[in-house]
Amino acid sequence: MLALSGAPLGLRFLVMDTVADACAGQFVPLLVGDYRDRDALAEFASRVDVATFDFENVPAESARWLAERIPVFPNPGALAIAQDRLAEKSMFRELGIPVPGFADVDTRSALDSAIERIGAPCILKTRRLGYDGKGQFRLQSAGDADAAWQALGNQASTVGLILEAFVPFERELSVVAVRGRDGEFRAWPLTENWHVDGVLSASLAPAPVAVDIERTAFAHARALSERLQYVGVFALELFCRDGELLANELAPRVHNSGHWTIEGAQTSQFQNHLRAVLGLPLGATTALGHACMLNWIGEMPPAGAVLGERAGHWHDYGKTPREGRKVGHATFRSDSASELAAGLERVGDALGRQAQVRPVIGRLATVVAGRGGGE
Amino acid sequence: MLALSGAPLGLRFLVMDTVADACAGQFVPLLVGDYRDRDALAEFASRVDVATFDFENVPAESARWLAERIPVFPNPGALAIAQDRLAEKSMFRELGIPVPGFADVDTRSALDSAIERIGAPCILKTRRLGYDGKGQFRLQSAGDADAAWQALGNQASTVGLILEAFVPFERELSVVAVRGRDGEFRAWPLTENWHVDGVLSASLAPAPVAVDIERTAFAHARALSERLQYVGVFALELFCRDGELLANELAPRVHNSGHWTIEGAQTSQFQNHLRAVLGLPLGATTALGHACMLNWIGEMPPAGAVLGERAGHWHDYGKTPREGRKVGHATFRSDSASELAAGLERVGDALGRQAQVRPVIGRLATVVAGRGGGE
Ligand SMILES: Nc1ncnc2c1ncn2[C@@H]1O[C@H](COP(=O)(O)OP(=O)(O)O)[C@@H](O)[C@H]1O
Ligand SMILES: Nc1ncnc2c1ncn2[C@@H]1O[C@H](COP(=O)(O)OP(=O)(O)O)[C@@H](O)[C@H]1O
Ligand SMILES: [Mg+2]
Ligand SMILES: [Mg+2]
Repeated sequence: MLALSGAPLGLRFLVMDTVADACAGQFVPLLVGDYRDRDALAEFASRVDVATFDFENVPAESARWLAERIPVFPNPGALAIAQDRLAEKSMFRELGIPVPGFADVDTRSALDSAIERIGAPCILKTRRLGYDGKGQFRLQSAGDADAAWQALGNQASTVGLILEAFVPFERELSVVAVRGRDGEFRAWPLTENWHVDGVLSASLAPAPVAVDIERTAFAHARALSERLQYVGVFALELFCRDGELLANELAPRVHNSGHWTIEGAQTSQFQNHLRAVLGLPLGATTALGHACMLNWIGEMPPAGAVLGERAGHWHDYGKTPREGRKVGHATFRSDSASELAAGLERVGDALGRQAQVRPVIGRLATVVAGRGGGE
Repeated sequence: MLALSGAPLGLRFLVMDTVADACAGQFVPLLVGDYRDRDALAEFASRVDVATFDFENVPAESARWLAERIPVFPNPGALAIAQDRLAEKSMFRELGIPVPGFADVDTRSALDSAIERIGAPCILKTRRLGYDGKGQFRLQSAGDADAAWQALGNQASTVGLILEAFVPFERELSVVAVRGRDGEFRAWPLTENWHVDGVLSASLAPAPVAVDIERTAFAHARALSERLQYVGVFALELFCRDGELLANELAPRVHNSGHWTIEGAQTSQFQNHLRAVLGLPLGATTALGHACMLNWIGEMPPAGAVLGERAGHWHDYGKTPREGRKVGHATFRSDSASELAAGLERVGDALGRQAQVRPVIGRLATVVAGRGGGE
């Protein structure tokens, strides 16, 4: 999606990936290599003017090595912090951004004391390399500590572990924002997200929230991006509980919860990421009406129902189907919240995906009723 | 632009072109060959499921040869008619679509009698292979007949010639429309176009015209598409004079005057062309606010002024600069006609292109004043 949105800017791409069937390879040249392979990195560096990444688990060290040779945005330091839940949450706290309770866990007994301090329910997570809810174990009570250690304990000495308080949130929100080389900061309207088993299922934007919530979320995102001297697009994932925001994590890249910006905003996250990385003027982040994104996970559903919708747009990544894999998405964009809801209802019925669209339709009902911002 | 808009549909492309640096080759595989080379055509046919073209001078015979082997849309018969100004205008007339006076010209003396019948001023044009105003000679009076024959007479026996009455039009308009395999017809809002030296310079959509003009234009386009059993996107170019429409020509392909649909419409002409050709449901052709497209001809201007505009979108085709060549375009999209006009004014000033934006700004002023449809 980065390459497709950069093509009209006259840009040419070289994608480095560990697998030969990386989906960008359908449209741009691919350099296949391990991210730690210095020869591959050197070849990559020799063939591009500037580097970026859309995968947050690129080793920060490799990004650093590249950055000594060519410009790399966002900077590898920001990547390193965002890769480590402990460093990330500590930074949130330092900047005065509220976070769920958390504690470093490096031994079985540290887990017990962490549970005691933080309370249950809580979540044990790997500090590094987790994504799409992988590397997480939910504890209902202290009695689940053994099972949790069983599941993740062996990773304490490799990627590290962190215990987090479970937040019984009312909503999940994300700020998708961009910061330019010159420090200019722009955020798209707040996005509301629904996850299933830790994986993003649906997003709605603009999220119907009170103005002060959006303002606080933007202030957090801006403070983080300035602290990190961040350049490019990033997402700040937030929990909203009793009208308070708690920061969950920072994704140092274009984000799944920003996919709706392709059709739903004046400028997409993909194009603005490229503009930022290249030092070009940033595009407007205004929303065009209301947009809902539905993720296709595992395999693509038949396209007809979405293409037959006035509001519907289809995104097939051309990936081989595989359980749990994000293989595509659909975006529905409409000037009218009620039309959007009606379209989602039809698509949910046609595809037997009522459960996926239901929460979005419920939220849109509050927009239609004019109480979106009032809750 | 077809390939870029088809990528999200999960489509894969093979482009056949006569030159190795065809700009689509930056993103999709290219098969270089002469359009009449049967071996190249056979290889092409063997590697694709369905074929289409975005260049109207592909030999109709080659399209026919392909169509005996694989599905080709639009059908080669429609292509053949659209390639011949005489066949095209005769069909317009048969369908009751008003046209400027015209006459076949095959000899020097036929030119004299044609001028006598049609009157001056008039334009001598090649029947086939003309584009961007090439292959045309304007006659102010019968006294220009020698010069016209001098310029084009030698083509009378190859591509044929046609003499047309010169239309002192108030406006040029185009219908960009799509017809599906199942016969469904959809048109984007009417576009107003400004040409310089026969080459499109700027487009504005929706064109501010009276409702009955738009209705008539759509009816003409629909009638043509049904007569031709057309499948895909096409443009019908029209002159508007004293509130009457005269048909100029039919372009059997995605059209430069439809480039604004990428950002300015719910579905772009490119994606709807692909949907039509593949028998997928057609997308909505509704406009999103007001859009203006400016063509970049010869070479790209610096990008900054456009990228710095809220409404601005950049399209660099990655072509080598060459005099008269269309190398890119910019689209400006805004919900507000006055904001759009202000943006065009700034860009015109920044790029020293006041003459290019002036007519569009003038027309937008009538929209702002609320008299767009009344003229
Ligand atoms: N502390 C928490 N309290 C409640 N839910 C959580 C918590 N942490 C994670 N989740 C749920 O799991 C999802 C994925 O967890 P996250 O920490 O964002 O990891 P990932 O890196 O896999 O996205 C979150 O979006 C949220 O729905
Ligand atoms: N009969 C005509 N009267 C007035 N202007 C014309 C006429 N024919 C062509 N033109 C002008 O020249 C432009 C290009 O001519 P056209 O016939 O459309 O050829 P092309 O195939 O090159 O687009 C038109 O868009 C219009 O501006
Ligand atoms: Mg997350
Ligand atoms: Mg023309």
